Amino acid sequence: MLAAVRWDLAELGGRAVAAARELALASTSAKDAALASAADLLEGHSDELISSNVEDLDRAQGSGLTPAALDRLRLTPERVHDLASGLRGVARLADPVGQTVAGWLRPDGLEIRQVRVPLGVVGIIYENRPNVTSDAAGLCLKSGNAALLRGSSAAISSNRAIAAVLREACRKAGLPADAVQLVEDTSREGAVAFMRLRGMIDCLVPRGGPALIAAVVDNATVPYVIDGDGNCHVYVDRSADVDMAVSIVANGKTQRPGVCNATESIVVHRDVAARFLTRLAPALDGVELVGDEEARKLLGSDRVAAAEESDWGREYLDLRLSVRIVGSLDEAIAHIRLYGTGHTEAIVTGDRAAARRFQREVDAAVVAVNASTRFTDGEQFGFGAEIGISTQKLHARGPMGLLALTTTKYLLDGDGHTRQ
Amino acid sequence: MLAAVRWDLAELGGRAVAAARELALASTSAKDAALASAADLLEGHSDELISSNVEDLDRAQGSGLTPAALDRLRLTPERVHDLASGLRGVARLADPVGQTVAGWLRPDGLEIRQVRVPLGVVGIIYENRPNVTSDAAGLCLKSGNAALLRGSSAAISSNRAIAAVLREACRKAGLPADAVQLVEDTSREGAVAFMRLRGMIDCLVPRGGPALIAAVVDNATVPYVIDGDGNCHVYVDRSADVDMAVSIVANGKTQRPGVCNATESIVVHRDVAARFLTRLAPALDGVELVGDEEARKLLGSDRVAAAEESDWGREYLDLRLSVRIVGSLDEAIAHIRLYGTGHTEAIVTGDRAAARRFQREVDAAVVAVNASTRFTDGEQFGFGAEIGISTQKLHARGPMGLLALTTTKYLLDGDGHTRQ
Repeated sequence: MLAAVRWDLAELGGRAVAAARELALASTSAKDAALASAADLLEGHSDELISSNVEDLDRAQGSGLTPAALDRLRLTPERVHDLASGLRGVARLADPVGQTVAGWLRPDGLEIRQVRVPLGVVGIIYENRPNVTSDAAGLCLKSGNAALLRGSSAAISSNRAIAAVLREACRKAGLPADAVQLVEDTSREGAVAFMRLRGMIDCLVPRGGPALIAAVVDNATVPYVIDGDGNCHVYVDRSADVDMAVSIVANGKTQRPGVCNATESIVVHRDVAARFLTRLAPALDGVELVGDEEARKLLGSDRVAAAEESDWGREYLDLRLSVRIVGSLDEAIAHIRLYGTGHTEAIVTGDRAAARRFQREVDAAVVAVNASTRFTDGEQFGFGAEIGISTQKLHARGPMGLLALTTTKYLLDGDGHTRQ
Repeated sequence: MLAAVRWDLAELGGRAVAAARELALASTSAKDAALASAADLLEGHSDELISSNVEDLDRAQGSGLTPAALDRLRLTPERVHDLASGLRGVARLADPVGQTVAGWLRPDGLEIRQVRVPLGVVGIIYENRPNVTSDAAGLCLKSGNAALLRGSSAAISSNRAIAAVLREACRKAGLPADAVQLVEDTSREGAVAFMRLRGMIDCLVPRGGPALIAAVVDNATVPYVIDGDGNCHVYVDRSADVDMAVSIVANGKTQRPGVCNATESIVVHRDVAARFLTRLAPALDGVELVGDEEARKLLGSDRVAAAEESDWGREYLDLRLSVRIVGSLDEAIAHIRLYGTGHTEAIVTGDRAAARRFQREVDAAVVAVNASTRFTDGEQFGFGAEIGISTQKLHARGPMGLLALTTTKYLLDGDGHTRQ
């Protein structure tokens, strides 16, 4: 059956490529009209969207999804309204397409301009979150890209309903409906075939856990941007303001523990460890601590479980925090180098030299001084929205807004210039 | 033996990662000193380099390499001097590391800066060109990256000798010798294992033909930038200045036919075809023409061989040119869309509207108006040097200078900022 799957996908891919050509030339006002219309239609069809979502939820009852996963799958009138607001927000953002990034004149009079253009077709693989269908399609549309959306089987009815609304909105704005396509094949083989639509998908953004990322790295032949794990550390330096450190760690760990920019591990300088940890422990009531021997001595082995080697590298995504005591900034940086995932690392310090060294030497998408790891986010950065957070170094690194959905081309203008 | 190969490579990779950490923090003056020293040492050891090269050439005699390939393999005193000049030129370029790309203040006072940093470890796979060993290592060094160089078996003695000189120069400048490492395993299995050094190679730049590119797309698990084929077209519009068009096509085809930015195919508007082609034919004396029926009628079937379907998509890299007659700009764009490789496409026109449409609608790294396709080149763009020409859309597109060997990281500076 694999050949049939691939043929279906190639058909979708071909339609996406054709739509992308039209979208690349679409005016900002047409794209914004489609976004506004999609927002109105989502709200207007809220009842039908929720009925479709109930189908997904009913099916999910028997399937062993966790309560948290069921909650992510659920649509409510408020959540439909949020989707619409999200699209209206994207419509208000500046259109990146057509921006001149750089331009110069060569000594022989040849003019060179580097201008921003859409990527073409953007593929998204994601899990049981119907909101991604609307959010990702909106960002793709605004940046002039066709979206090929491959959600999960659990959310298929909701995704179908949302995609139908978005397609209708494109049509109404005079844009190709194929600007937004949902891949109905949600099988594993289908996912692999999707990752191999080379020449059709210009950029794949997988949004999921380590198993999905590993499948992409192993199988994809299309270009991709990895939105990977965040094993985010806060290093509490010897010179840290202890109150500030407590507040930053508590915010990073507890404000929203299930997300990639949550703080997962703290590294504490020995000189401040007793003062800091005795203040931190009560502030993290309800958070399970696992730590090294020194941390356990300071807070008691009742409060701090013994960390295993595997704890240092784990992204808990839960109310759990690992605690490591070190003797120097060098040791802290070495620890983060060994266990960090290149997402977000923070230092709390009053020492200017330590702050500068930490920012220079720690190799991560975001390196923060005296701020919570939770700021690594497109909204918090002021991008208005985000398609994901890149933990890779090529193309985009850190929160990805509309710019990450574009590439550039060089335009040369001559008067018959030839090369000597 | 595969496991042993991988272990050896992992050892090299680990040393490259360690060297990259030091290089990322190296001062511009230390890097420039290493480049200057390498240039001096290359010239000082010119005789030894040429002796090593003679070993390669001797071995190559029996191996069936073409005269052109043998020529690319050969080192002469002049060519060694060129390598040294190249390194001195790279030393004079601005250091991209540490540049602030963007910076802004959030409403809550959080400061965000996006700064340019090295990629880390750059892997290069290349063919029988010893000059790449020096050129690529120089660009990596200047941009603060460790270079892992995997040349061909045919050039191994030359590459060893050049790499030894570069390593010595790093040492003399107080930089780690492992900033430049040559991979001695030049087997196919070794190449595949090299492409899978995930977590060690931050960016792979394969420089070779379609077979190498296909192997990378199929096997690589490390991030890569494709330096692909150039099936570059010149479209001669009905409004073209015929003399200008002849000069641009002749330059694109004959100035250096074996390179990726050479013109491989021309698309000619019917209204200007007779006048243009009768002027072009004598200017392309010695160039084999293949064309469609209309072109053959205009120039005679002696002068123009019948094009087969496969001709339209071919990168000849030779004194051969395909000729297609079309009835409109739309037809020309459709032809280029179908057969182009996204490298460089040019139009010759006097019509402003045609020029604008061509530049907007043709999807390629470089789209030129009234200029030769040969300008797609780092030197010609004013980048000073190039590591390759990207035909992909992610990370870098078109000629890649030092900037393409960097990524960015975000630095956040707060005063105890937490997210609400």
